[in-house]
Amino acid sequence: MITEEQVRQALAKVMDPELKRNLVELGMVRKVEIKDSQVRLTLALTTLACPLKDQIVAEARAAVLALEGVKEVEVDLAEMSAEDKKRIWPDQDQPGVAERFNHIERVIAVMSGKGGVGKSLVAGLLAVALRQEGHQVGILDADITGPSIPRMFFPTRQWPQGGPLGILPVESKTGIKVMSINLLLQSEDQAVIWRGPLISGAIKQFWGDIIWGNLDYLIVDLPPGTSDAALTVMQSLPLSGVVLVTSPQGLAGMVVKKAAQMAAQLNVPILGLIENMSYAVCPDTGKKLEVFGPSKSEGLARQLYVPLLGRLPIEPRIAELCDTGRIEDYPAEEFAPIAQKLAEIALPARRPMFPVPRAK
Amino acid sequence: MITEEQVRQALAKVMDPELKRNLVELGMVRKVEIKDSQVRLTLALTTLACPLKDQIVAEARAAVLALEGVKEVEVDLAEMSAEDKKRIWPDQDQPGVAERFNHIERVIAVMSGKGGVGKSLVAGLLAVALRQEGHQVGILDADITGPSIPRMFFPTRQWPQGGPLGILPVESKTGIKVMSINLLLQSEDQAVIWRGPLISGAIKQFWGDIIWGNLDYLIVDLPPGTSDAALTVMQSLPLSGVVLVTSPQGLAGMVVKKAAQMAAQLNVPILGLIENMSYAVCPDTGKKLEVFGPSKSEGLARQLYVPLLGRLPIEPRIAELCDTGRIEDYPAEEFAPIAQKLAEIALPARRPMFPVPRAK
Repeated sequence: MITEEQVRQALAKVMDPELKRNLVELGMVRKVEIKDSQVRLTLALTTLACPLKDQIVAEARAAVLALEGVKEVEVDLAEMSAEDKKRIWPDQDQPGVAERFNHIERVIAVMSGKGGVGKSLVAGLLAVALRQEGHQVGILDADITGPSIPRMFFPTRQWPQGGPLGILPVESKTGIKVMSINLLLQSEDQAVIWRGPLISGAIKQFWGDIIWGNLDYLIVDLPPGTSDAALTVMQSLPLSGVVLVTSPQGLAGMVVKKAAQMAAQLNVPILGLIENMSYAVCPDTGKKLEVFGPSKSEGLARQLYVPLLGRLPIEPRIAELCDTGRIEDYPAEEFAPIAQKLAEIALPARRPMFPVPRAK
Repeated sequence: MITEEQVRQALAKVMDPELKRNLVELGMVRKVEIKDSQVRLTLALTTLACPLKDQIVAEARAAVLALEGVKEVEVDLAEMSAEDKKRIWPDQDQPGVAERFNHIERVIAVMSGKGGVGKSLVAGLLAVALRQEGHQVGILDADITGPSIPRMFFPTRQWPQGGPLGILPVESKTGIKVMSINLLLQSEDQAVIWRGPLISGAIKQFWGDIIWGNLDYLIVDLPPGTSDAALTVMQSLPLSGVVLVTSPQGLAGMVVKKAAQMAAQLNVPILGLIENMSYAVCPDTGKKLEVFGPSKSEGLARQLYVPLLGRLPIEPRIAELCDTGRIEDYPAEEFAPIAQKLAEIALPARRPMFPVPRAK
């Protein structure tokens, strides 16, 4: 005859992989029903969006199944109440608690200094290409006053779901997790008239209060400039590095150099340079038209001592797809080698990302 | 026989048109030499860059010539010392003192919200077109982290001159007065890694500490976004209104709507919309290629209840001229009607711009 005590003892050997304490101690084991060789138990998770949910359930099941006489284990899931969580983490109401449930391998910021050279397009295509290769990918839209990412990924208006520990990003058609201020606004063309500290606060929340879960890559789309948003991302997020985007204009090159200098000053690696809007193709003659003048990106890459990852054409079709939330339909073959090169260069983030909970 | 006393009495009737006090009271009349019917006097101006210099000299000369027996008047100019000025304006060391010497009729901000749609190009062409019509024009580059204006107007590196009361803007080939952070940096690709308050401070100084002199139009080139720079310009400068710049991308339209909403919230008139990068022209077929997709600006202008001032093509030649400091060589015929329309719409600035000096 199996006893509840035996089951609890077995579960006391299962550790929550993030919280580093066992399930019993964490108060996760709720109802335990035993009927002959069948055990049915309820586990209360911190959040049903817990990215390690499957792992915890599997380990709990295995531990109970290992008991002599147990032939079948059924696990029901519940979610802890706010009080339960407060007991485990007295500081759980403080911002940044979602960060503990995230495991983000590499964080890549897409930057330019200059506006309108195609940072968001590069960020979007990079995410699409990495996702197509089977990676778990998220995009953090750090452009608070001019966010472009949701428009590219969602044909219709989306709203993020709020969980007890944080906000869930919105998933795109192919499973890319997206967070942007525009997903939180009443209407997407609402102005966000904020000075620097609010901008920085929003970006920090997008990092700390969003349940990203397990990601191989988080792509951060930066706004133009070398002010608050860029500073906050470079100082507060564990970046693998930045990708610089430029256009063939000499003027863009000058501003990109400013961005490169900022990254160098803040000790953030530059992974490479991408030239966007290099040329348009005339549909009648098939000829490449350098509508913004001849490319200067090779020289620029050499001056910055960074690899030139690629040159992208202007394509009316991309503009069309981006404007209608269908960037994932774009055949990203041209972009795939760029994404692969980047994936090779980007090293895992530079700082430990799991601070041990400050439980009393 | 003419006496010095007579000359001084005559000059006591001449008012400094800005300071609203007479030349004697202001201590401007220095040496007075009388030889028969000839009078030679020295006027100490607050600054030799004083925009009203010629007017003051002419009035002083006329006043003395009106004295019986005077046949010839010679006026030498000198500059007041710091002590002299301190006596007249005890607060002259405080920032913003140059503002008193400026007379700026209309201030037009060029804004977009979105980056890279051609704000700086529109700002530059607008200045060039207004200048060609004979107006006095200045450009205040409010894009502190990504300034583009100097590169458009100056083929070689320029340095502004500092005067006792403020900094003199740099004049372009055709006499457009330009101030930009890039004119003050050691090297033009140096990064300006500043948070919001410093950005705002710089813009306020560009308004208050620069001796713009008499201007019919001051064009303010705003950076992308609706954060510190835009807020400071809209809250601190006496704007006639803003010109919105968009591109054919739907995404740009969305962000431009945010900018329009900001202007509305801050009670700044929107003078009109300009669509840039509407199309490129294939050099072989002469056909218009809508490389960023079909234009959406008419609908956008209707939605915003603002006039559509014009649509500009992508021209490799403009990029080339802008990259080499020769924007003034661009035949701005296409832009001239836009500038004229704007000149009609823009009303003089909304706030008094000459605070009476707080002299003790």
